[in-house]
Amino acid sequence: MLFFTQCFGAVLDLIHLRFQHYKAKRVFSAAGQLVCVVNPTHSLKYAPTRCAAVQASTEQGILPPCHHHEAVHDPQLVPCTCPLFSCPWEGHLEVVVSHLRQTHRINILQGAEIVFLATDMHLPAPTDWIIMHSCLGHQFLLVLRKQEKYEGHPQFFATMMLIGTPTQADNFTYRLELNRNQRRLKWEATPRSILECVDSVISDGDCLVLNTSLAQLFSDNGSLAIGIAITTSKVHSSEAEM
Amino acid sequence: MLFFTQCFGAVLDLIHLRFQHYKAKRVFSAAGQLVCVVNPTHSLKYAPTRCAAVQASTEQGILPPCHHHEAVHDPQLVPCTCPLFSCPWEGHLEVVVSHLRQTHRINILQGAEIVFLATDMHLPAPTDWIIMHSCLGHQFLLVLRKQEKYEGHPQFFATMMLIGTPTQADNFTYRLELNRNQRRLKWEATPRSILECVDSVISDGDCLVLNTSLAQLFSDNGSLAIGIAITTSKVHSSEAEM
Repeated sequence: MLFFTQCFGAVLDLIHLRFQHYKAKRVFSAAGQLVCVVNPTHSLKYAPTRCAAVQASTEQGILPPCHHHEAVHDPQLVPCTCPLFSCPWEGHLEVVVSHLRQTHRINILQGAEIVFLATDMHLPAPTDWIIMHSCLGHQFLLVLRKQEKYEGHPQFFATMMLIGTPTQADNFTYRLELNRNQRRLKWEATPRSILECVDSVISDGDCLVLNTSLAQLFSDNGSLAIGIAITTSKVHSSEAEM
Repeated sequence: MLFFTQCFGAVLDLIHLRFQHYKAKRVFSAAGQLVCVVNPTHSLKYAPTRCAAVQASTEQGILPPCHHHEAVHDPQLVPCTCPLFSCPWEGHLEVVVSHLRQTHRINILQGAEIVFLATDMHLPAPTDWIIMHSCLGHQFLLVLRKQEKYEGHPQFFATMMLIGTPTQADNFTYRLELNRNQRRLKWEATPRSILECVDSVISDGDCLVLNTSLAQLFSDNGSLAIGIAITTSKVHSSEAEM
């Protein structure tokens, strides 16, 4: 009986995914780019204590990596950088990607230019849409977050973090682009390192910020499409290009 | 005595303008673009009754021109479109520009690409930075507004309006660009017609919106530089290019 229930659940999931895929194809029929449908996750670690120290020090103009303020004895170890869950995991930077994939089920996509299609934008804050993006020999974490900085007024924040050190991050430029209804909004910046904590980047507002009204203007049927492109920003970063 | 006081005032104004000009030159030394220093004006007609009807109808999905809701007997006449003052003036669309220049002292600039340098961004809301821009045979009104949509949280709204009809406005695309500290933010859209009321465009949020934190990231020494470019968006708009 349990087997049949699970089978039925799997079929329902497949139908849902198929529907999302058609929705994505309809939105980007002419674009010819790789479209990735990203479903929302209700954030389970809103305003985590882990980053409180980082946020406090950011307000004072200092921005150390997250693990600096924790009782991590081996300086080579970094805590879990998943923005969704408070997770006790810590490990070397090189294995963060496999931890995020295996433990937190975050998908990873290949390609220099992709379209991130966030569904169900109407869901209440706090909600996150997250994906990893493999490009130019590195992995990036794209986070779209719906959050109420001011009570009753949710905003959308989108940023890209390099799963690497701040020095490595300086070699790249990422671009997020919204394009709909004869309106276009582009944000270009150097990605932050995942060591800098995504929560503090968003609380600083150093990312693409959308009011609800703008998000609605760029949405189609409750889904927001964000074009993503990553380029190398320095000549000596050629070693990073594989 | 009055003469000497006025002379002294004029000299002080000149020194202030000179200082602003050097500030602008310092910011855009390499850009080679026409830089226009725009000083703020404390808005004297915040939430004007004139546009209340338009805003209410906008929320219902209708967007008539401002004059539609007023007791204007000649449909050819439009009210004063100055976003700063409640002004009883009304006249034909063709003379709005000269009214704005002469009565409200709004400067006009020539050129397809200019840099709008808004000074004193720290001033409290509501504050407006306004200039007219003459380009491709038409005049546009650029409005940067600091406003508290949510109490205690001022935001900046920037939009470009064509001093012309909505049909004429459809022929153009405007671009506002912020570029500083390895960050770039671009907004591209079709300008709205001045008949649609700048207050309702801003309350709809259909414009470039900046949180205080983003505005600070793009500001230099309290001044925000916005690169402006206008292009024709349709082939049959060549008649508009003079």
